Amino acid sequence: MNTQPDPRTKAAVKAADRAHVFHSWSAQGLIDPLAVAGAEGSYFWDYDGNRYLDFSSQLVNTNIGHQHPKVVAAVREQAAKLCTIAPGFAVDVRAEAARLIAGRTPGDLDKIFFTNGGAEAVENAVRMARLHTGRPKVLSTYRSYHGATAAAINLTGDPRRWPSDTASAGVVHFWGPFLYRSPFHAETEEQECARALRHLEDTLAFEGPGTVAAIILETVPGTAGIMVPPAGYLAGVREICDRHGIVFVLDEVMAGFGRTGRWFAADHWDVTPDLLTFAKGVNSGYVPLGGVAISAEIAATFDERPYPGGLTYSGHPLACASAVATIEAMAEEGIVENAARIGEDVLGPGLRELAERHPSVGEVRGLGVFWAVELVRDRATREPLVPYNASGEANAPMAAFTAACKKSGLWPFVNMNRTHVVPPCTVSEDEARQGLALLDEALTAADAHTV
Amino acid sequence: MNTQPDPRTKAAVKAADRAHVFHSWSAQGLIDPLAVAGAEGSYFWDYDGNRYLDFSSQLVNTNIGHQHPKVVAAVREQAAKLCTIAPGFAVDVRAEAARLIAGRTPGDLDKIFFTNGGAEAVENAVRMARLHTGRPKVLSTYRSYHGATAAAINLTGDPRRWPSDTASAGVVHFWGPFLYRSPFHAETEEQECARALRHLEDTLAFEGPGTVAAIILETVPGTAGIMVPPAGYLAGVREICDRHGIVFVLDEVMAGFGRTGRWFAADHWDVTPDLLTFAKGVNSGYVPLGGVAISAEIAATFDERPYPGGLTYSGHPLACASAVATIEAMAEEGIVENAARIGEDVLGPGLRELAERHPSVGEVRGLGVFWAVELVRDRATREPLVPYNASGEANAPMAAFTAACKKSGLWPFVNMNRTHVVPPCTVSEDEARQGLALLDEALTAADAHTV
Ligand SMILES: Cc1ncc(COP(=O)(O)O)c(C=O)c1O
Ligand SMILES: Cc1ncc(COP(=O)(O)O)c(C=O)c1O
Repeated sequence: MNTQPDPRTKAAVKAADRAHVFHSWSAQGLIDPLAVAGAEGSYFWDYDGNRYLDFSSQLVNTNIGHQHPKVVAAVREQAAKLCTIAPGFAVDVRAEAARLIAGRTPGDLDKIFFTNGGAEAVENAVRMARLHTGRPKVLSTYRSYHGATAAAINLTGDPRRWPSDTASAGVVHFWGPFLYRSPFHAETEEQECARALRHLEDTLAFEGPGTVAAIILETVPGTAGIMVPPAGYLAGVREICDRHGIVFVLDEVMAGFGRTGRWFAADHWDVTPDLLTFAKGVNSGYVPLGGVAISAEIAATFDERPYPGGLTYSGHPLACASAVATIEAMAEEGIVENAARIGEDVLGPGLRELAERHPSVGEVRGLGVFWAVELVRDRATREPLVPYNASGEANAPMAAFTAACKKSGLWPFVNMNRTHVVPPCTVSEDEARQGLALLDEALTAADAHTV
Repeated sequence: MNTQPDPRTKAAVKAADRAHVFHSWSAQGLIDPLAVAGAEGSYFWDYDGNRYLDFSSQLVNTNIGHQHPKVVAAVREQAAKLCTIAPGFAVDVRAEAARLIAGRTPGDLDKIFFTNGGAEAVENAVRMARLHTGRPKVLSTYRSYHGATAAAINLTGDPRRWPSDTASAGVVHFWGPFLYRSPFHAETEEQECARALRHLEDTLAFEGPGTVAAIILETVPGTAGIMVPPAGYLAGVREICDRHGIVFVLDEVMAGFGRTGRWFAADHWDVTPDLLTFAKGVNSGYVPLGGVAISAEIAATFDERPYPGGLTYSGHPLACASAVATIEAMAEEGIVENAARIGEDVLGPGLRELAERHPSVGEVRGLGVFWAVELVRDRATREPLVPYNASGEANAPMAAFTAACKKSGLWPFVNMNRTHVVPPCTVSEDEARQGLALLDEALTAADAHTV
């Protein structure tokens, strides 16, 4: 593990980055990207000898940790053998990756359409649903993120949608269950569940169920706040979809492949969607890969009628080889079980304990290695530590919290008034406890902004 | 090079493929994908010992040929070092790939936004143009392909757009120049150029130039037919864009990185767009990668205002490492120059000679290793060998031609009534001549369907 300072390289990397790299979701003139020199397991490090415990799994994708030796070996081996081949051919690693994924997806979701990432997976799921039903509209929730291509960003609920929004792309947003900030004024999980289903029924009635191709949900909404759905909600949506002939799409780009302590989050509630989108954890992002798992019924729609979608790198051999190795390593090494155990034994209890001691913590919620810590100015009113979509001065309390984490050597995932505790599924008990200790310190910075 | 027959592996690969892989652009029940066992340089082979001369470069992406040793080595080295890191960081290979690309793009297109492929590049170019101008509409041509995500497929002109078309996404299609099937009844290149520019001016006048954010063109339209634009056309569009404050986007996903015998096709006409999209040849698809090269003026729009777009794998280290190695190898080995020379000395003269002898060849056109052979029933009327968007029986003449190519060991790129001669930029003179000889034979199958 090379943690040697190397200031010359750092300066060169930063200079070329600032001159030529245009970064995602950023004001290019206001950012100062950290130059990363290397990574391994739950850590990455910079050129100044600083190591960070990666409690973000990057963008919640390195489920298997950084540089897992078996996955690295598989990528190297496949690179020597066959880097790329067009989607029209049959190739060993592509077929094997599809077989391994289909073997784990719920129900009869046994055909896999591969993409390069999550947004393209959502785009294709929406296309399949529209063509399968012949209906135009798709329903998604306000608290959601589904990607940044045109259809995916339009489905997204968070403010990143606004600048790219187009009025009539056939998307309707509704409210999902979220007891802590209940859109339905519910006081119990049962109430929240019943009212959320009623709200969906009402929305459908007024949209016209016969106009709706699909309802897309993140099984456990991720970036928008890791809101674990109440028992019965997903089964309720499944029943509503069945009743109206609507395609049920579960977006497991973030929640899938071990993140929640099961292979798929849907497994917690024994619900089978018609389409399931995945990316990130499928190969921990070692090579760009995503996809859609397709039910037998929807796949059959395209048995004789050509499926009108595709991409140059569908089922990319290098990406598929890394997925095969990732899935095999996760199975052999009990990585999904580790995520479940860390959640139950360490992160859950540890975060609840922090919540008791820190007035800035309004709620902690999650499962597996997928936890949200909701930061508030006031526990009684639940007023968020910063306003919705705050930036600049208004966001200062969260910026202070983030800076405190980084200073202590903890790399956090931060979104609005929340920090998400989302280490790799391979995180050890010691690392998880160490991370909680660092978080404990950093929360003091947030406490300073409570009323 | 392993060309050993291996019927057991073949059977297993095909069985798993048919059970679990959902293929792009296909009727899943009607396809029988060839199982590919390996590839090198200009060839790939199956499990039965058949080798194919790859005159398709897969989907016109393996510009550097299959398994180029320097690129394979770079992928393997980077895999051992750092497979993935989030887009927010500065990383050596990402910065270096951006620097090398920016060093080759025309004019001041010096900032690079990385994506996973071509469609996402187009999506982001459109977003940048709309936000930069504050205008809604984008103009593209009928004879074009721009990718399969919602905005990209809507911009696409070919029939693959139809099933995914949405009426009001702000896209307007117009006609580009194409003398052989002139939409403007022109008889010379000069006429075609002037009339095509006039048509664009007229269309803009009636759409309202102040409502148009961008005009997007493939510099040399690829899948739609490799129509080399007449001298003056691109400069004319540039001038029209300048006059109306419209962003000029050149899509070089297929035409870029050596395909036309220059680094970018735009170099042939000394035209500088405001945004240039790329993918495919940037790293020959060894790892999924695409991107947008951005002018200083448009980049500055997002200096203080956050750019509202992104993706988990923007600037993926493994993909960037393969781009660095690809660009360096192309420069060191004179691969772009090779593509130019093969076009001038072998493919151009050779295809023109075939055109003289085969009544089914209506026209050959192209440059570098980017050629279209337009097959017709009747040279006098120019009636295409098969109708536009033909399938099934109506497409039988093209199917017979395709089968003849494959039987002879030549893997062709076929679209509608055309075959495209698009070998790797690394193709040798001998290979190019051998391919022409095989094509000569196969054209006899097309000749049989002329009047
Ligand atoms: C639930 C969900 N869907 C889709 C996406 C988009 O994936 P990508 O960034 O790979 O396009 C994300 C990314 O964070 C996600 O969390
Ligand atoms: C000109 C052009 N633009 C965009 C695309 C889409 O690229 P991708 O398939 O990587 O999404 C293609 C693919 O063939 C293309 O040729």
